Order: sequence, then C-alpha cells, then structure tokens
Amino acid sequence: MSTQAPAAAPIARLRTLRSVAVRTPEAVAAAEFYEQVWGLQQVEADNGVSWLRGSGAEHHILEVRDGEANGLGKIAFSVGTPREVDEAARRLAERGIALVAEPGTLDQAGHGYGLRFADPENRLVEISCDVEAVAPRDPDGRKAVPRKLAHIVLNTVDIDAACAFYTDVLGMRISDWSEHQMAFLRVNSDHHVIAFNKAEWTSVNHMAYEMASVDHFMRGIGRLKHQGVVPLWGPGRHGPGANTFSYFADAAGLVCEYTSEVAQVQEDAWLCRVWRRTPELSDLWGTAGPPSADVRSHMAGIPDAGGWWKR
Amino acid sequence: MSTQAPAAAPIARLRTLRSVAVRTPEAVAAAEFYEQVWGLQQVEADNGVSWLRGSGAEHHILEVRDGEANGLGKIAFSVGTPREVDEAARRLAERGIALVAEPGTLDQAGHGYGLRFADPENRLVEISCDVEAVAPRDPDGRKAVPRKLAHIVLNTVDIDAACAFYTDVLGMRISDWSEHQMAFLRVNSDHHVIAFNKAEWTSVNHMAYEMASVDHFMRGIGRLKHQGVVPLWGPGRHGPGANTFSYFADAAGLVCEYTSEVAQVQEDAWLCRVWRRTPELSDLWGTAGPPSADVRSHMAGIPDAGGWWKR
Amino acid sequence: MSTQAPAAAPIARLRTLRSVAVRTPEAVAAAEFYEQVWGLQQVEADNGVSWLRGSGAEHHILEVRDGEANGLGKIAFSVGTPREVDEAARRLAERGIALVAEPGTLDQAGHGYGLRFADPENRLVEISCDVEAVAPRDPDGRKAVPRKLAHIVLNTVDIDAACAFYTDVLGMRISDWSEHQMAFLRVNSDHHVIAFNKAEWTSVNHMAYEMASVDHFMRGIGRLKHQGVVPLWGPGRHGPGANTFSYFADAAGLVCEYTSEVAQVQEDAWLCRVWRRTPELSDLWGTAGPPSADVRSHMAGIPDAGGWWKR
Amino acid sequence: MSTQAPAAAPIARLRTLRSVAVRTPEAVAAAEFYEQVWGLQQVEADNGVSWLRGSGAEHHILEVRDGEANGLGKIAFSVGTPREVDEAARRLAERGIALVAEPGTLDQAGHGYGLRFADPENRLVEISCDVEAVAPRDPDGRKAVPRKLAHIVLNTVDIDAACAFYTDVLGMRISDWSEHQMAFLRVNSDHHVIAFNKAEWTSVNHMAYEMASVDHFMRGIGRLKHQGVVPLWGPGRHGPGANTFSYFADAAGLVCEYTSEVAQVQEDAWLCRVWRRTPELSDLWGTAGPPSADVRSHMAGIPDAGGWWKR
Amino acid sequence: MSTQAPAAAPIARLRTLRSVAVRTPEAVAAAEFYEQVWGLQQVEADNGVSWLRGSGAEHHILEVRDGEANGLGKIAFSVGTPREVDEAARRLAERGIALVAEPGTLDQAGHGYGLRFADPENRLVEISCDVEAVAPRDPDGRKAVPRKLAHIVLNTVDIDAACAFYTDVLGMRISDWSEHQMAFLRVNSDHHVIAFNKAEWTSVNHMAYEMASVDHFMRGIGRLKHQGVVPLWGPGRHGPGANTFSYFADAAGLVCEYTSEVAQVQEDAWLCRVWRRTPELSDLWGTAGPPSADVRSHMAGIPDAGGWWKR
Amino acid sequence: MSTQAPAAAPIARLRTLRSVAVRTPEAVAAAEFYEQVWGLQQVEADNGVSWLRGSGAEHHILEVRDGEANGLGKIAFSVGTPREVDEAARRLAERGIALVAEPGTLDQAGHGYGLRFADPENRLVEISCDVEAVAPRDPDGRKAVPRKLAHIVLNTVDIDAACAFYTDVLGMRISDWSEHQMAFLRVNSDHHVIAFNKAEWTSVNHMAYEMASVDHFMRGIGRLKHQGVVPLWGPGRHGPGANTFSYFADAAGLVCEYTSEVAQVQEDAWLCRVWRRTPELSDLWGTAGPPSADVRSHMAGIPDAGGWWKR
Repeated sequence: MSTQAPAAAPIARLRTLRSVAVRTPEAVAAAEFYEQVWGLQQVEADNGVSWLRGSGAEHHILEVRDGEANGLGKIAFSVGTPREVDEAARRLAERGIALVAEPGTLDQAGHGYGLRFADPENRLVEISCDVEAVAPRDPDGRKAVPRKLAHIVLNTVDIDAACAFYTDVLGMRISDWSEHQMAFLRVNSDHHVIAFNKAEWTSVNHMAYEMASVDHFMRGIGRLKHQGVVPLWGPGRHGPGANTFSYFADAAGLVCEYTSEVAQVQEDAWLCRVWRRTPELSDLWGTAGPPSADVRSHMAGIPDAGGWWKR
Repeated sequence: MSTQAPAAAPIARLRTLRSVAVRTPEAVAAAEFYEQVWGLQQVEADNGVSWLRGSGAEHHILEVRDGEANGLGKIAFSVGTPREVDEAARRLAERGIALVAEPGTLDQAGHGYGLRFADPENRLVEISCDVEAVAPRDPDGRKAVPRKLAHIVLNTVDIDAACAFYTDVLGMRISDWSEHQMAFLRVNSDHHVIAFNKAEWTSVNHMAYEMASVDHFMRGIGRLKHQGVVPLWGPGRHGPGANTFSYFADAAGLVCEYTSEVAQVQEDAWLCRVWRRTPELSDLWGTAGPPSADVRSHMAGIPDAGGWWKR
Repeated sequence: MSTQAPAAAPIARLRTLRSVAVRTPEAVAAAEFYEQVWGLQQVEADNGVSWLRGSGAEHHILEVRDGEANGLGKIAFSVGTPREVDEAARRLAERGIALVAEPGTLDQAGHGYGLRFADPENRLVEISCDVEAVAPRDPDGRKAVPRKLAHIVLNTVDIDAACAFYTDVLGMRISDWSEHQMAFLRVNSDHHVIAFNKAEWTSVNHMAYEMASVDHFMRGIGRLKHQGVVPLWGPGRHGPGANTFSYFADAAGLVCEYTSEVAQVQEDAWLCRVWRRTPELSDLWGTAGPPSADVRSHMAGIPDAGGWWKR
Repeated sequence: MSTQAPAAAPIARLRTLRSVAVRTPEAVAAAEFYEQVWGLQQVEADNGVSWLRGSGAEHHILEVRDGEANGLGKIAFSVGTPREVDEAARRLAERGIALVAEPGTLDQAGHGYGLRFADPENRLVEISCDVEAVAPRDPDGRKAVPRKLAHIVLNTVDIDAACAFYTDVLGMRISDWSEHQMAFLRVNSDHHVIAFNKAEWTSVNHMAYEMASVDHFMRGIGRLKHQGVVPLWGPGRHGPGANTFSYFADAAGLVCEYTSEVAQVQEDAWLCRVWRRTPELSDLWGTAGPPSADVRSHMAGIPDAGGWWKR
Repeated sequence: MSTQAPAAAPIARLRTLRSVAVRTPEAVAAAEFYEQVWGLQQVEADNGVSWLRGSGAEHHILEVRDGEANGLGKIAFSVGTPREVDEAARRLAERGIALVAEPGTLDQAGHGYGLRFADPENRLVEISCDVEAVAPRDPDGRKAVPRKLAHIVLNTVDIDAACAFYTDVLGMRISDWSEHQMAFLRVNSDHHVIAFNKAEWTSVNHMAYEMASVDHFMRGIGRLKHQGVVPLWGPGRHGPGANTFSYFADAAGLVCEYTSEVAQVQEDAWLCRVWRRTPELSDLWGTAGPPSADVRSHMAGIPDAGGWWKR
Repeated sequence: MSTQAPAAAPIARLRTLRSVAVRTPEAVAAAEFYEQVWGLQQVEADNGVSWLRGSGAEHHILEVRDGEANGLGKIAFSVGTPREVDEAARRLAERGIALVAEPGTLDQAGHGYGLRFADPENRLVEISCDVEAVAPRDPDGRKAVPRKLAHIVLNTVDIDAACAFYTDVLGMRISDWSEHQMAFLRVNSDHHVIAFNKAEWTSVNHMAYEMASVDHFMRGIGRLKHQGVVPLWGPGRHGPGANTFSYFADAAGLVCEYTSEVAQVQEDAWLCRVWRRTPELSDLWGTAGPPSADVRSHMAGIPDAGGWWKR
C-alpha cells in the first residue's frame, strides 16, 4: 500500500485539449501538407510559425514551427477563467513546479490568458482561457476535414510517472490501460485526449484529428487517396476508446491520424479497464492487420530531450 | 498574477434558483398583476406578504412584500440536505461572513430548513432545503404561464467583486461575459440564473420567468396583449444564453421578462466566452431592435441600499 | 346522396408542390424584391422572365414574368416518372380535359418532362418530372431564407367545384375546412400545399414560403425589418395547419408569407375537421390580432380571368 | 386456385375505429359501471341511451342502450369526407348490399355524416365523417383512464366469410392469424381494431380500451382493485399484436379489457403470420396462465341474431 | 407521348424481396463458401439443393442448386395473403402471362403458398406468402453476418422493357436511374431491391447482402480478410441508394456484395432522379476507385437463356 | 445548528454497487435457487462459497456462503483505480477507521485490487477496482433475467448514524427520505443503491435485482410463477425511486426483489425530498396493496451482530 503524503488538489479543472505544436526542420513542407492535403486551414503565420485550424470553433489546433529535429513544441489545454489560471499558478508554486511562462496574455496567434510549465519529461504544457474563437468553417461537418484535435499519443520512458503527473497535477482521469504498455487519459467525456505509450525514449508517437462520423472518416481517406496519400495503417477500429483509425505520415515524417466516434465516458459510472494486447482488440474490424515495421518506426520518432524553449 | 491566499471551498453546492422576493410600495397591485395578468398563482398570503408559484413543483417563485421603495427582498437558492446547510454556516463563519439567520426552520410560507446572509452589496441571500413541494399545476406545460423563475439580473457597482463573491463563496460558475458590462453565472446546466450588470447603483435590473417553449413564450405574449400589456422590449433572442426575451413592466414598475430555451451547459467542456456588445448579438432574431430609453430606465431601477431586514 | 357516376382514378399521384409563377406589370421590381429582400436567389432569367430558387434542391420555386395585371402564371406539381406524365395525359383525355401542352420536354428553365392543362377557373396547372435539381444552397438551413414553396392560397368563386376538381382529378386530399370559407388540401404529409378561399373573384390570395424552424422564421422577420419591410399581419400561428405566419406585400403588391412548422399528416389516420372561424383559432398565439382591411384587400387581389397563355 | 370474378375496390378507406354500441337489459347498471368504475365519461344521455367518451378527441367510444339480451348495437368506423360516404353508398349498391341508413346526418349524439349497413352475420356497421370532436380530457394521459376504443373481438360462425367481407368490402387488412381460430384485422397502423374468433354462435367476445402505456395499464388495474373489481384474466401480454391485456366483466356481464402498446404495422413491409396457439404465445409474460372456464363463458356470450334495428 | 392502352393494375402489392436462387456447376463449393466464409447458415439441404438463411426472420435468403452453367434460379418476393396470390394468378391470366406454377403450396424448403411465372427475359419469378418464419439468429445484429438479401442486380438486354414489366406488372417503383445504364427499383421503403443494368446478354450481375450498420459492414470485410478473401472492389459508398459496398467473388465466380445503410424512401414525396455516371457519384467515399476489368468481367457473367425449369 | 468539526473529504468516489454477499445455513439451497429459479448464473464455486453473475459485465453480483444464521456477508462497491484504493486506505486511517483487509489483491473469485473495513453496525464493506470483467451473457437483455444488483436495503438501529457514515465517509448522497423511516442513498445516477430502514435490530431487509424494462420485469414474474414461486408482495411501483417491485423469498428465507426503471438522478439539480408513508406512495400502481405480516417478518430478518470475519 502507498505511504505517500495526502494528495493535493489538481492545479486546475482542464476542459478540453486545444492544440498541439510540433517542431520540425521541414516546417514549411509540413504546414503545406496540413493545409493542402490534410484539410486544415492556416489562420495565421508569423516568422516561420504556422497556426492551423480545423472546422470547429478553436482558434488553432496545430502549430508548426521550425526545429532542429522533429519534436513536440507544446500541448495546450483550456480552463474556464483567468482566475483559474492564476489559481493554477499558485498551486504549481505550492508543488514546487517552476513556471516557464507566468500567467498573462499569451504572445501567440489567438492570444488568450495562460501560463506554461514543463512536465517531468520536459514537455511544454500550456493552460489557457479567453483565446479568441473563430467561426466554425463548416458548421455541420459536411466536408470531410478534421473538426478538432482528437488526441495526442506520447512515447514515454516512465509511463507510471507520466500518468501520476497528469492525474495528480493536471487532474486527468485514466480511462483504460492497454496492458501496462499504454494508458488513455481524459479531461472530459471523450475517452482520451492524451495517451502514453511505454517506449525507449521520449517523443511524439502521433496526433489524431477528429472527423465528424465514420462516413466523414472514410471520405477523408478517399480524399487523401486522390492526392496520392495512402494509409500507413488502417482503416480500422481500436478496442480501447472504440475510435476508428487510419494513420498517415505527414511531410516531415510525423504520424497523423484520422479518427471518429471515440467512446463517450459517463464520469459517474466509468470503471478503468485493462485491455489485453491482442490483434483482435487493437483492430476490432479486422481490416487493418498488425501495424508494419514502417509505421512502428514512424511512431517511435526520434529522442526528444524537450526544453527547446530554453535553447 | 494573483497573489491571493489559497481559495477555500465554496460554502455549498447550490442546486437551483428557487425564488426571489421584491419589496415595493405597490405590493398589493404588484401581487395582483403577477396573479391575474402574468400567470402566477398565489399559494399563501400573510400580513401583506404574498407568495406566488409558477406551474412547476417549487413552493413559490416570487414573494411580494411591502417596502418603502422598490427593492430586492431576497434571493433564494436550494441545497440538498440540512447537513449541507449546517456545513455552509460553518464555512461562512470560517470566512468571517455574519449570518442574518442561523440554520433552522424558515419562518415563511413553505418553510424548509435554511440560513441567510448578506452579500457585499447588502443583498439578502438564502439557502435552503426541505421546502414543501407543491404538485405541478399544469404538468406538461400546455398553459402559457411561467414554469419557474429563470434568472434575475442585478445591477452592481462593482461587477468584479460581485462575481468573485458569487463564484468563490457560492461556487457559481461564470458562463459568459458581455464585454466587461455583464456577467452570466450558473449553478446547474442552465446557462445562467444570476447575471450582474455594471451600473451606477445597486438595484434589481429585472426578473425572468421561464416558459416551456418558444411556442408558450409567444402565446404568453399574446395573452398579455389581450389584457392590454405590451412589451417594453422584444420579442427577441439574446446572444449570451441564447434565450428568447420579451420585457414588460409590472404594476410597481419593476421589469419582468418571459423567456424560453436558455442554453444548456455541459459542465465538463464549457468554456467561458466574452461576447461583443453589438446589436446583432443582443438581438439574434433582429426583431427587437435596441432597447428604448424607457426600458433602460426601468431596468436601472432606483438605488437599493439593502439591509432592509435590519430596519 | 350523390348520384354521380363512379369516380375514375385521379390522373396522377402528385408528389410535391414545386413552384408557382406570377404575372405582374412590376416584374422587374418584384424579382428584385424576392432576390434582394425576401431571400430567394435567381437561377436564370430570360426575356423578362426570372426564375428564383430557395435553399432546397428544387430548381426554382418562383417564376416572375411580365403581365398586364397581377395574376397567376402557373402552379407546378411533381410526379415520379415520365410514364406517369404520359398516363396522366391519357386520363385527362378520358375525362375530356384539353391539354395546354402535350407531354414533352418543358421549354423553360430547369426543363423536365411534363404537361399542362387548365383548371375550371382557367388557372394553368403543370405536372412534371425529371426537372434538373440544384445543389442545396444552405444545406442545414442556418440562413434565415426560404427553403421551399410551402403553399399557395387561391381565391375561388366556387369552392366546392374547386375542391372537387383538385381531389377527383388531381387526387389531392382535404385536410381541414375553415367553416365553408376555406379548404386546405395536401399531396403528401404536409398539411396543405393548396388552400381555396371563397371569394368574389378568382385570384391569387397569397404564396407562402417555408422557413426551417420557428427560429428561422423569426430571424427572417428580423432581417426584413432591417430592410424596412414590416409585416402586414403577424407574427402569429394558425389553427388549421398549425403553421406560423407573417404576411408581407411584395414590390408588386402581391402577398407573400413566411411560415414554418406546418402540421404533418399521417395519411392512414387523419380525419378532416371543420374549424370554426374565431379569432382564437386563426391566431393561436394571440400576437397577431385580426387581419387589417389593408391585408384583406391585398389578399383579395384583382379579378384574374386566367387563360393568359392563349392571348 | 380461386376462380372468382375480379375483385372490386373496397367501398371506402376506413381511417379509425370510432366506437361500439352494446345492447343490454342492464343498460343503466352498465353505463354506471363504465362511468364510475371503468373511467369513461358520459357525454350525453337520451331516452335510455348513454354515450360515453374516453380521454381522447373522439366524441364517444361506447354507446350503451337497452336491449332484450346482451348483444352488439353497432360498430362505427371513420372515413375522411362526406364525398367518401357518398361514394361508399354507391359502391355498396353496386355490390348489392342494402343500406340500413342512407347517407345523411346521423341522428345520434355527436351527429356527423354517415351511413349504415349490415354485415353477413347481421351486425350493424356505420361509417361516418364530420362527427363533432370533443376536447381531450386529459391531454397527456396522466390519468389511468382509457384513451380510446382499441379493438373489438367478434365471435363468428364463419370466420372465412367474415374475413372476406371485412377485407373485400371494407378494405381491412389481416395482420395475423392465431391458427385458423382467430384473425386480426387492421385499418391503420394499429395491429388490429377488429378480431374474429371462430365460435358456435355470433356474439360479441369482448371490447378493449387503450391505456396510454404499460404504466397507465397497471395503474388502471390498481384503480379497479381499489373499487373491488378484479381481473377475470390477466395481466398478461398477447403474442399476436403484442398488446398487454387484463380482462374484466362489466355490470351486464360483457367482457371489457384494458390494453396498451399494441404493435404498430408498417404497411409496406408487414407480412401476415400464422401464430400457433400455445400458452406461451397467448401469454408472453407468463403471468396470466390459461383463461378460466368462467372467462371463456363470458367471452362466448349468448347468440346474437343481429338485425335488432328492424324489430 | 405514349399511345398505349390504359394500364391495368399491378398483379400484386409486393412487400419484400425474400430470396434469390442461383444455379452453378460449383453448387457444393458455393454453398460451402456462403456458409463457412460469407456468414449464412444452412437451414435445409435436399438432393443437391442448399437453402441458406441470414440472421433475420426470413426462412432462407439464398438457394444454391446444381446447374450446367452459372445462372439465375429464381427471384422470390412476398405478398400478404393467399388471397393476394390467387388474385395475382387471375391478373396474370388477364394479361396473358402463363404460369410456371399454379397457386399452391410451394414444394421447397420453408413451403408457403405461392405461384411462379417467367419475366420477358425468361427469369423465374415467385411470389408467395405464409412461408415458415425462423427465429432471428442474432436478434440485435452484433455478429457481422448478413441480415437479409438486400438487392440483386440483373444484366438485361432491354432495360426499358425490363423496367416496364417490373413496374407495370409487378408494381415496383423506379427510385433512380444511373443515366440510361442502370435503373433502381423498390417495393418498400428500401431504395432498391432490384436493379437492372444494360448489358450485352441476360445474366446475374451480383447479389447484395445487408449488414446491420457501417460498423458491421467493416467487420464483415475484416472477417473475410482473415479467411483470405479480399474485395474485388470496395469498400466504398454508392451515389444512387447511398449504400456502402464491397464486392467479392464466391466459390463459383458469382459476385456477392456486403452492403449497409441503403437510403430509405418516403413514398409520398420521393422523386426519381437521373444520376450522372461519374467516378465521384459511384464512389462517394473515394476509397474504391473505378472497378477493375476483373470485377467488370465477373459482373458481366455468362449469357443465361433462362427457362431452366423447362429443361 | 451543528457544531461539529469541518468535514473531511470522503474516502473515495464510489462508482457502482458491485455485489453483495450473504451468509446462511442454507447456502447450497440458496445458491441453487438463485441459479435455477432466479436467473443468475454461477461463475465460480469454491469451498462452499458460490459466486453468481447476472447478464451484465460484472464478474459476480451475489456471493452465497455458509453461515450459522442468515446474515450479511459483505457489500462491495467499485472505485476507478488502485491509486484510489490506496488513497482510501490513507483517509480511513486519518479518520481512525481500522481496515479489515489492507489494500491488495482480493483473495476471491474475480480478484481485483481492494480493501475492506466495517461500518458502525459491523457490516463488512469492500471497495475495489480492476476486478475481472465477464462478457455480457445476453447483451441486449432479451432474456428476463437480472442484469445487475440494483440495491440492498439494510435494517438499522440508528438510521441517522448510518446515513452520516455512508455520506460522510463513503461520499454517498441521500436521494429521498420516506419520512424518518427510510433513507435512499446513491453513488451514481441510479436513485439509490443502498437504503436504510429504521428497525429494531441490524439485519438485511432485502436485495433487489434489476430487470432491463417493465416488460422483462413482468416476464421474470411469469417465469417464476411457472416454477411455482409467487410474490410475497407485488407487482407494484414505489413512490421514492419510482422503481417497479415484486418481492419473493429465496430458499433460505431471505427476501429478494425484481425491479426495473429506477429513477435517474441529474446530480446538479436533484433535491432531496421527504415522502409521506401513505399506501398510495409506496404502491403507485395500486396493484400491490399493503405488505402482509409475512413479508414484513421476512424483511425484518434476524439480528445480525456482524463481525463474522473475526470469528
């Protein structure tokens, strides 16, 4: 049994996963891929950084910026009010976690009021509110383009430490485990917005974008096919989360996924389960087969020491 | 960034807005208006105080009592159990907030177990449980009469202090801002039950009553028209809260509103927004036009020093 | 009891009301009104004739053409297949009803295969199939513009003869009567697409356009108000058909209506009713009051001898 | 194979089962039972005849009149319009079926325009339109009282002839057979409104009244129990029609049934089935057990020669 | 315009497509394929004929019998009652269409009462009622196996004559055309159960089996993949009918399809359309690409002279 | 008003009621009753202990073990994660509540990670996570067998102390009171999973099992009837919780209940009510009548000193 000290309250009540930032030497090609092929739309570009939106109301869901090697730029979550941002700063201080950016207006596209800090593997985490909204582009989702960022899977060298930090400090809940290899974490009724994957080094495994239905999902795959982009793995449907999947590589070699129909969790009655890692359960349709060595290699990425903002 | 001390937990988990009390020199005429014209029904009257109900299960949603000038009598919220009332008393004491009425059986129509205290602008707030229920009058809402109290808008001389008190102490959440002029606060999935409006003096802006649908809402307006009562402003539909509106003046000159279809907030994922104050957003239908000087004057009310119960 | 000969089968199974054509000396101004104010969109114009569409898939719902005086141009219904058009021609011949246009490709915008004949009051009726569809403009109806033609009300000098012809020959069903003053006829589950109004002369009473919901309906009224166009009568809600209404005059003085939420008839179990003509039943909301002399005069129109195509 | 002449069209398109009339020496006691115990309400009484309504919009669903012995008075169906009544008269004449009452205003409570004729076992059948409607008493069905007449089961000495007449002449459709013992016939989406039961003599087997839900059905049984009336058979749920059932005897010894949730037939795709007569299929819940000799005897009734209106 | 004689009524009101029979020299292998790979279940086998069911209530949906070459055995439709079968025989006689089997008990698995005749291209058509039902195997469709026969596509040398026969004689309705190449015909709310494809010779193009949802459809494809069976064409989604598709070859070389979510037609308001034959419209998802020469060759089949029952 | 110290947080957030264990001298007969008559299924048996499941995913919902007299074995609740079990242990220690079993793998069928402690009346309480799931037996609930344990009613000698412990320590919420005789407590949206009944001694009152609908509930009663088991009380429908009920005695004389359709609580807005104890409110249908002395005696049980695990 645990002998640890009483758990402090999480620093905030996260509402949604807003966006992810990636760093890559191929930033121009990658931004072009996401806009012209993948279906996002550039909202702003500045000094080599591109901000791209989906069809939903979030100002941007992807930031692509220049970097020496492929790596994570930032993960951004929303909270409700500036007061919650300030309170989070106070609680981070109580826990002895240093801020990378003090609460204040965010110096980036869409602005908002937020703060930043690093997680134990040196990934930059941002929480914010009052970010400028944009009008939905395709309000009823008829176009087969991504609506929002669905989730990000992170390779981790210490999955237990990662889960402890994201649940204790950030208040996320573990929805399911895939044995002791992957953990799926949620902030709202979506089954997961972050998943950790036990790996040899810290890196981004992949980012997933939500399509409005299975029909949109299939039409998205068809649209990519007409542009000569074929899945690395999929289409298929996962066991944990029950979401459909089809994985691709972007112009920088990062893995991106179309997904749809992720399971909705009823907070009161959901019980965390442990799924066995059998082909049947990671591919409920049976259409995908096991992932190839190639896709596994893309998903492994390259070691990402983090802390890029200090350099 | 805030340097304030750690936030204590709110004093209680409020469940619903029960009722409002108003004080007015025209108490008899006002009560008559609400019963014979507006569609409420008197449940009890005693010593110049009238208690009126809607068609729902709440014992009364409006109390009209004699006063030297138009002013607020009380705002009443519900909590779950007597234990929660007692706990709220303890937490108010911890915060140094004096009670106007200690926890106990409430000496009024419908009874119940509750307590009372004053907010920073000397408005009387009551929280209670175990109030006698009444059988719904018109269970399926076919009659175009109010079902419940929908919300109350309060003019405030310090909107930030008001919001801080109602969120910190009472645990309400801010759903939206209309620039820095109005703040909309909720206790459950209804978008707002209290709104604060920045003003030159403290007073009641207006009270809104919920109709079961847009159809009931329109039929209510028609019913008033047949009694010679026409809207000061409306019909229309607001941006923040998305509720329909039609404002009238009661026999005492207080502003009362029929409303319907207020937005439902999913707690987990709602993000507070700031709305610009444009005619389009305060009148989504475009049928109402801007409010007249007359309605603005009614809504401003007269300065209400509060603390009437001490006199 | 009737001693008439056995009823022959109707000439066709009408599916929908497609469009109406009007003739007016103010054709240019009227077309401009419908496009710039009312919310329709011109699809084609040729030689002084304008064809205008709504947001739905029908090629056009209104045709405006030059005429010496305001009058009806045509009423167009759809049938399923060319074979049904041919069969209708055969049955019209059997009944001794002369064709104005033999079955064939229609020489007009949107083409299609159809035929034309005149009703007993010399109104031109067209039935057609295989008309070119257009892509829905606003597929989910967010814009407050008309989706389709909802119904047309026709003033008639012999309401019984009119009903007999439209039920016997065209197979329409009477959904309701408003005493012996008005009859409401349907071709599908919409409560009515044609209504006859007993009058001193034959003319068009008004045309109604369907908005997607009460909310769209109110927003449409608001949009017109911003353009300086105010209702002649309404908003309100009718008893027979339960549809909302708001009547306006177009640039030629013809009456046009925004409507929404017409009752849906379940063919198997619907019983025709006779409604009393009381203010309460023609204005369920009570917001409209009785129609003014002005709107009544507009609706009476001027005598329309019909048979314009022969001149 | 049949060598019969080509089938003529049915005489009318029946819309609903309106009401049933019974004749009994215990008319006063029976009417009192239906009003005070069973939950109907008397709308009119005249010269020893009582007309009783349910909570729905039908003027009356039961007529109780004096008779020498228990027997059927009349079965009444609705059609859409007077024109259809007249056409039915013409077609009956064509078939050589004599009218008992010519088309005209019906001389009874609720009036309406209709005609009457006798079926092959001398039962009086009425078809009518334009009967006065009554305002629903309990519009949303919260009270556990019958809403409408659900069906009537008729004992017949020639089930094939009975089915032939009601399908050929009246256009009813057979929904299901219970072996060759019972046949269930519909006029709209309700699985049956008439059932024939093969028997030794012609008589009424029972009449069933529709409750709004299983919950109302059970509350109705409870309400009767408090008045000392207990089921002869039931509660249970039938196989054919899937409706719940609980049978009682009225004050005259006629069998009456509470029922709910009868199967809804989709006309296009329904296939008539033949059910085996096993206890499991006539009592899907298994709560009722087989009917007792007593209930069987009540349901057999006494021989009813019909033609009472001629005496 | 047509000068043909007045159309007689169709011979019957068809309710559903029951089953199809195929003849093939590879009957044993084909039956084995459908049972062990495709997901059907053998209900009965007799003298080289196999009858296979889906998971629904239909006794069998496929009959496989020995034949000299691949060809159609029979198409079977349901009607409501034996009386309708007899009436159909009478009407066929009136039209001068010879019966292959007189009305009577069908000498085959599942029995029933029916008749048979040949269409103009010598295909055997059966209409029947009172076929023995079977209990649904997997009532809620969790298993990814076919529920029922969805449709059959027939190659025809005279598409207009074929459509004329199936609409005039059998009362089917044309839902859509794919230019003048394919016609889609319905008997109930399913968009089509028969389609004709203009071809150089008469043959079966393919048979389609309905899966309960897109999810079942994909799981079915995955299940086949695990058995080494990959699609000839698909997965994709068609324009006309909006159904998903994935085509395979059975052990005899006949084409079989998994499909799901076919469009539902509202009879009253449906208008027949003509679709252009563009890749986008025959593959709405864009995932399938154009059909290969191989699949086209399979679908062409070999000339089928019909009339096999006479040999 | 209360002067107690500030309330500590509950020890855990309970998600569901998993199972109950009973001790009885008739363990073999009781287990046989639950499997062969009641509709549960044995998952495991070991050394005189039987574990039985319903049709849902919970490993077992009832444990029957040998005991000297009828009594409670254990009540088991679920929590989300092992971390929550450990935290619960820490908080129990803080409150000075001794553990009966330290956090660890549970030594019983289905395993899982959990802990145990005793409540103030010496009842054993278990909280656990990661219990092995079982595949639902009858996924869509067509069989009339229990799906899960619905609730357990416990006789208590100090209802206020019991409620205080289960709300303060276990974080349950009181949904309703039946005067001061019974209290209904919930952990999720089900109206109650535990109810306390004021009694002369501590014992189990009864256990209730959830059927999927009223229809399943009635079919369950019918199935028992065919096995000769008739209700002690019921069928009926309760006021508080609105659930249907039918009470039986098992082979050991313990009371077991079929129930369905318990009220769903919306946490945000639910207000605890106090119900009067009238026959109407404990039997909404009126079908059950008051409970007999016999059922009352069974429900009283025999005094249960608890603490059996120490003996």
